[in-house]
Amino acid sequence: MMWNTNLRWRLPFTCLLLELAMVVLFSLFVRYDFEADPHWTEEKKYRHITSDLENDFYYRYPSFQDVHVMIFVGFGFLMTFLQRYSFSAVGFNFLLAAFGIQWALLMQGWFHTFQDGYIFLGLESLINADFCVGSVCVAFGAVLGKVSPVQLLIMTLFQVTLFAVNEFILLNVLLVKDAGGSMTIHTFGAYFGLTVTWMLYRPNLQKSKERQSSVYHSDLFAMIGTLFLWMYWPSFNSAVSNHGDAQHRAVINTYCSLAACVLTSVALSSALHKKGKLDMVHIQNATLAGGVAVGTAAEMMLMPYGSLIIGFISGIISTLGFVYLTPFLEAHMHIQDTCGIHNLHGLPGLIGGIVGAVTAASANLQVYGQEGLAHAFDLESGKTNRTTDLQGSFQAAGIFVSIAMALVGGGVVGIILKLPFWAQPADENCFEDEIYWEMPEKQETISSHPENPALKTVAP
Amino acid sequence: MMWNTNLRWRLPFTCLLLELAMVVLFSLFVRYDFEADPHWTEEKKYRHITSDLENDFYYRYPSFQDVHVMIFVGFGFLMTFLQRYSFSAVGFNFLLAAFGIQWALLMQGWFHTFQDGYIFLGLESLINADFCVGSVCVAFGAVLGKVSPVQLLIMTLFQVTLFAVNEFILLNVLLVKDAGGSMTIHTFGAYFGLTVTWMLYRPNLQKSKERQSSVYHSDLFAMIGTLFLWMYWPSFNSAVSNHGDAQHRAVINTYCSLAACVLTSVALSSALHKKGKLDMVHIQNATLAGGVAVGTAAEMMLMPYGSLIIGFISGIISTLGFVYLTPFLEAHMHIQDTCGIHNLHGLPGLIGGIVGAVTAASANLQVYGQEGLAHAFDLESGKTNRTTDLQGSFQAAGIFVSIAMALVGGGVVGIILKLPFWAQPADENCFEDEIYWEMPEKQETISSHPENPALKTVAP
Amino acid sequence: MMWNTNLRWRLPFTCLLLELAMVVLFSLFVRYDFEADPHWTEEKKYRHITSDLENDFYYRYPSFQDVHVMIFVGFGFLMTFLQRYSFSAVGFNFLLAAFGIQWALLMQGWFHTFQDGYIFLGLESLINADFCVGSVCVAFGAVLGKVSPVQLLIMTLFQVTLFAVNEFILLNVLLVKDAGGSMTIHTFGAYFGLTVTWMLYRPNLQKSKERQSSVYHSDLFAMIGTLFLWMYWPSFNSAVSNHGDAQHRAVINTYCSLAACVLTSVALSSALHKKGKLDMVHIQNATLAGGVAVGTAAEMMLMPYGSLIIGFISGIISTLGFVYLTPFLEAHMHIQDTCGIHNLHGLPGLIGGIVGAVTAASANLQVYGQEGLAHAFDLESGKTNRTTDLQGSFQAAGIFVSIAMALVGGGVVGIILKLPFWAQPADENCFEDEIYWEMPEKQETISSHPENPALKTVAP
Repeated sequence: MMWNTNLRWRLPFTCLLLELAMVVLFSLFVRYDFEADPHWTEEKKYRHITSDLENDFYYRYPSFQDVHVMIFVGFGFLMTFLQRYSFSAVGFNFLLAAFGIQWALLMQGWFHTFQDGYIFLGLESLINADFCVGSVCVAFGAVLGKVSPVQLLIMTLFQVTLFAVNEFILLNVLLVKDAGGSMTIHTFGAYFGLTVTWMLYRPNLQKSKERQSSVYHSDLFAMIGTLFLWMYWPSFNSAVSNHGDAQHRAVINTYCSLAACVLTSVALSSALHKKGKLDMVHIQNATLAGGVAVGTAAEMMLMPYGSLIIGFISGIISTLGFVYLTPFLEAHMHIQDTCGIHNLHGLPGLIGGIVGAVTAASANLQVYGQEGLAHAFDLESGKTNRTTDLQGSFQAAGIFVSIAMALVGGGVVGIILKLPFWAQPADENCFEDEIYWEMPEKQETISSHPENPALKTVAP
Repeated sequence: MMWNTNLRWRLPFTCLLLELAMVVLFSLFVRYDFEADPHWTEEKKYRHITSDLENDFYYRYPSFQDVHVMIFVGFGFLMTFLQRYSFSAVGFNFLLAAFGIQWALLMQGWFHTFQDGYIFLGLESLINADFCVGSVCVAFGAVLGKVSPVQLLIMTLFQVTLFAVNEFILLNVLLVKDAGGSMTIHTFGAYFGLTVTWMLYRPNLQKSKERQSSVYHSDLFAMIGTLFLWMYWPSFNSAVSNHGDAQHRAVINTYCSLAACVLTSVALSSALHKKGKLDMVHIQNATLAGGVAVGTAAEMMLMPYGSLIIGFISGIISTLGFVYLTPFLEAHMHIQDTCGIHNLHGLPGLIGGIVGAVTAASANLQVYGQEGLAHAFDLESGKTNRTTDLQGSFQAAGIFVSIAMALVGGGVVGIILKLPFWAQPADENCFEDEIYWEMPEKQETISSHPENPALKTVAP
Repeated sequence: MMWNTNLRWRLPFTCLLLELAMVVLFSLFVRYDFEADPHWTEEKKYRHITSDLENDFYYRYPSFQDVHVMIFVGFGFLMTFLQRYSFSAVGFNFLLAAFGIQWALLMQGWFHTFQDGYIFLGLESLINADFCVGSVCVAFGAVLGKVSPVQLLIMTLFQVTLFAVNEFILLNVLLVKDAGGSMTIHTFGAYFGLTVTWMLYRPNLQKSKERQSSVYHSDLFAMIGTLFLWMYWPSFNSAVSNHGDAQHRAVINTYCSLAACVLTSVALSSALHKKGKLDMVHIQNATLAGGVAVGTAAEMMLMPYGSLIIGFISGIISTLGFVYLTPFLEAHMHIQDTCGIHNLHGLPGLIGGIVGAVTAASANLQVYGQEGLAHAFDLESGKTNRTTDLQGSFQAAGIFVSIAMALVGGGVVGIILKLPFWAQPADENCFEDEIYWEMPEKQETISSHPENPALKTVAP
């Protein structure tokens, strides 16, 4: 079969080439920042740091580990719901993320910590790299089952770059706040992924339709992903906030939003089913929308009930999206969105950006306190001399910039991915692990034979 | 079928109503505490706090995340052992916990942090809310498979309230210590759940008996739950202890007790089987009993060997319970305890309360030091002027109060749950996901066909 | 069947005897260290510690929890890949680790914290005990499926002792650094396990060969183990490093090495397959080799690109090992290495030791700074007055000592395990859970029957 031959050397070659490039670029550019360098022992004195225990490591590491789990286990297992594509889901997510974090350390390093010819790595760099890769995991959800691992690596290469550019524009030029990445990660990642999948539209995808669904245990594996994403989202939304009250508040806001979101996702899932039954797709995905939607404003003064409202609305919109919008987009706009990322990252990402804009615009001295207001919007560093209204406008601008970057970037990358040498699977071979993986030989029926353990049932 | 029609709108309606109530109540009552409020930037000065790094967030968050995983993944997956009820187990646990933590923030807030008309949320509130919901997860184990999600939400509504009342009586009135909740969470939760299941006794449950067991892979999913509960229990038992040596000691005591418990659970499981084989039910559940039993006294001076002894005994009692007591209770007392919660939370919870009473009574100056003793039993805050003997008596009283609250509360809630409009499943439809969930269509046999990936085996 | 009768009382008896021994020894020897003792409240003053928040608990606990997850979930689930041995894999790992950590607390305590007749436990003790047990989990991988749980407990008993002796020689006598245990855990554990499995060689193992492979979902369960090991390895390699820059740097180095390793493991797995397909065994195991190989030098100035290079090479060597070396060792040297531990822990462990030796030898003032160099190699404590070249030689000696201890110790333990009363399974009963576990009765085919939920398909 042609596709087998095509992939034969492309995957090893691509992996080795990309990794060699990483080694070379890291050797030229990447060093440890002062908190991870042995000169820390001496430098502490100059910086009036009295104890090793003040190393930023201790104040970022727990959040970092949670974000890391979300990227590799959360996204990885969430996408194992497909009955015969679980190996590829978790395995390719692993691959693209392992490459993506390295390339992101470089790209984001060039944009943010480049000094005297070097990029300086600290724990905050690792967190930001995981954030960047998060947007690639989001986009992967749209094309899941329809692309080769080589295409995924190429997509990662470009998407990480675009992410870094977009992030720079938003955070450093427009000076917006986006703690949990509703705009930079979710909105950008979702519309990028949807554009790519639109570019890669397959009119004959129904040849593989029978595999584009779950079986009982693949749905349970996916719930592992769902739960780790849900539980650790407070860490995600607070990971790069200012130390102190901002991180503390971001955790509380996210926790509240996610809790409310579960209730309304369940409600809508049941209400929209003709017999009132729940749909695992909604429980796996829509329950997370609250985390996305509260991302930008998590560190702001949403108030706990404000967070509940955001979650309440997100669960409803997300579930409506799964039931009505995704089929519509597939039938009428040729957007084949395998995981329904538009409903979890697209629409809730937009909500997040809007909420952020509104919350920033309505920030005031009474609610934040003078120093609190300055601290929350980086006014004290003299970075900006804006009114809160103006800040709100810039926040809103961030949404549009992210969408524009996603659409244009997704279009270009889509064109690149259509090139005939990335070993893309044929229409009848989508959602099929067999193409890429050596598959186990036996069927999976395990049962008990009390008197003869050497015999087991093999269903014909 | 009648039950389908009954549930049709009840679940969406209940979820939306409860969530709207949460939004309204949070808007009226819930605010951030000073460590999560932007005024922290100014307030630090008044409180002589020099650094953002002293925010309590950093000293409670790692424990909080572990407790959160225990509630959602630990309990959620532990209950997936049933062959056709895994969706409901993990999904309904998700639902009741997401609602429960919100209602608990209110209930516990009214009891503990209510000031000037507001409840003040900080990370310790989130931990305590998870603790409260833990008792509901415990009770869920008794009724698992036999109730509708609407009944679970109603049960959560009442149980959270009863928990908060009981907790207040024990911790604020009787002034007992119960770090890991052996009394407030496990004893209370277990006897409440057993009373509810007794009230909901089904004489014809054998119609569903064939589904009240596991299959090979559902037992493995349950082990995910077991292991996350086991590994993170030290965080659970130390999460709300005093900072410093108390948290450090609680972790060590729990770790030791759980380790010993595994050895004796395995020993008894094998010894009580006629061929010496192990039973997964015991390995999934009895191995955790040590964590429950050392809960109350975890922060006390049990000494590491004392913790080992507690774990040693708990593993034995728990396994004996699974083998002999649960079947007895079912046959002779009409207590149909699906998960055997009496053996993991009931009996070990009682052990925990007793151990706590004895350890408190035997506390002395030599072991604790003068300041240590005052600090460990809150004597220094002037809260109590008791002798250690008297403290021990109060600790014991706490056990009885918890049981009484559980039995009475469970009785009342059981009556409420018997009302005919909660869409309870019929006797022949228990332990069956199909009633509540849209089920995957294909059978689950995955195998390899080297030359034709589009063909897969479907067992007839 | 003879083996059933043999095991009948041996397992309970062994477990109870070992646990009683633990209780007795802990009562004689084990106490809390000063940071977990209530006298901490008074002692803080003497040690000029101003706050409870300086308790070492807060600076070691997050790492400890991650290491704990790696031991119980990481190793436990990684070994569930065998189609009918998942219960034993995760269950026996649980058992041997729960016993191992207790025995390790004693053994390592006698060697490291023994003072005035007592062993003093703190969080660092718990981390080190988990490290020690890690080497037993490694060895378990070599004999997986071919030994009884009684043999595993005996192996643990001896291996923990040998580990403690080897660790003492390396860290306290030779004064080498081995932060992530490339030598003490991985090299030692692997060659010990390989020696034991060589001693227990079964010429007729092919009778069980059909069960020595995976099925689709067991491979997914194994990926849970893989990912938790991969994600938390930075904690493992930094858990006992000096506070401050050393821990921060160890995390960054491990993260980089593991990322590179994934790319080259995928590349080689595909390249070495005649159709370019990936092999789950490689993705489950070889992707972790980078963490092992960077273990010793993780806290040293590898530089980020140096870590990438180590990971790059490790992924290649590990995958080559799985494809060529393991079958060769089985066919020609009678080493039946069930999990291929030589490729994940043996060879990468050697790489780790070598890298550590080279990195130590090339350490210099310019790279580390004067105080940094002293701090990194414990020179300041006056422990050693060596040049860096000499330190490098000692590091290399550490590799040889570990291998020697493993080979000799493994030989002796292998002889002990061949004694006929440990209930070893017969050749035709290997890789079979049925011998040790009560197995679920039903076959595992779950599907939907929309109109009759009480009926489910049972494949014949």
